[in-house]
Amino acid sequence: MNDKTIITIGREFGSGGHEIGKRLAAKLGIPFYDDELISEAAKNTGYNLDYVKENDERAPELSIGSYFSGIDIYQSTPYDNIQFEETRLIKDIASKGSCVIIGHAADFILKDEDHVSIFVFAPMADRVERKMALLTEEEAKDMTPAAMEKLCKQRDKQRRRFYEFYTDNKWGAKESYDLCINTSRTGLDGAVSIIETMIAESKGKNLLSDM
Amino acid sequence: MNDKTIITIGREFGSGGHEIGKRLAAKLGIPFYDDELISEAAKNTGYNLDYVKENDERAPELSIGSYFSGIDIYQSTPYDNIQFEETRLIKDIASKGSCVIIGHAADFILKDEDHVSIFVFAPMADRVERKMALLTEEEAKDMTPAAMEKLCKQRDKQRRRFYEFYTDNKWGAKESYDLCINTSRTGLDGAVSIIETMIAESKGKNLLSDM
Repeated sequence: MNDKTIITIGREFGSGGHEIGKRLAAKLGIPFYDDELISEAAKNTGYNLDYVKENDERAPELSIGSYFSGIDIYQSTPYDNIQFEETRLIKDIASKGSCVIIGHAADFILKDEDHVSIFVFAPMADRVERKMALLTEEEAKDMTPAAMEKLCKQRDKQRRRFYEFYTDNKWGAKESYDLCINTSRTGLDGAVSIIETMIAESKGKNLLSDM
Repeated sequence: MNDKTIITIGREFGSGGHEIGKRLAAKLGIPFYDDELISEAAKNTGYNLDYVKENDERAPELSIGSYFSGIDIYQSTPYDNIQFEETRLIKDIASKGSCVIIGHAADFILKDEDHVSIFVFAPMADRVERKMALLTEEEAKDMTPAAMEKLCKQRDKQRRRFYEFYTDNKWGAKESYDLCINTSRTGLDGAVSIIETMIAESKGKNLLSDM
């Protein structure tokens, strides 16, 4: 590839977005960013790594107090500080060259930079089954499918709140992305192939280019 | 191809779904159905072709009267008769072999038949520009971009009402489809290539097939 190729991947929890991005980046021979953003943001903001992990991709909770104090409607929170630093990192990474970035509203942060924006999803039952199958024997002792479903919903909700707090778009709505893939129908490698085709086909094309 | 390949394509008005389906069917050498369903349904129901065209992919308007008559909550309408016949045709066509079917809620009608379900969309401005560019010189005299935008919205609304009246799914919501493509980013031939990759990758794959 001569041109810079930037791919952002939003994902429902358990639908395989992290793994798809990792395989795609390996296949294309370009850097991959997901948790890497977290450790870098921790280093740069001075927050404890566990604290940043805990607050990564989360939106601030506004308290009634701050709404009605009459003094400060909204003050910058640790969430904001982490998000501002991750935003700076994402812009910096993308300006330097090709990359695959998972989550973190990267699609919106890079709206002025040419990139391919993907969202992957799958029916809840399949996501629960996949996440259960990925547990170690030890982890599986403390987890039931019902608890896993609750975790999926909780994480999706966090991601939605985060995305919609910091962007103007709707999380997981097709209008916010270039391509949405149901990974239950393609598997992970299938999704990688589809994204590769999308990258090749999206170079300089538009709705009027081959009428 | 040895296996039967059935592709359904839902589409926002002006996003190129009809043309994408036609090119895909030609490339795969399999039958294509869109208006063909209308003329066949007209022949079989005995309705006038123009009447069927007018009422194709439309949902019945329920009058207050029928809600409150206390006798008949809902009576079969010409819309239903056309839709019932088109449903029968779609099931019959799909049972016989590979095909590409545009709209008509074919994805839902064929939910028990293995098929690949696509939805194509594009930002309004691009759809208006494409539809304006496709007008003959004569047609262009009577059309403005503003009027074209109104037409796009009207046709999308009709399709949404039709789809949601006859199915349990949400029209244009990613959950209802296997793949959603923003054709502003791929052009029509690009979308065809992506669907071809999807067809190849979806054979026997699922979220647990290559963890």
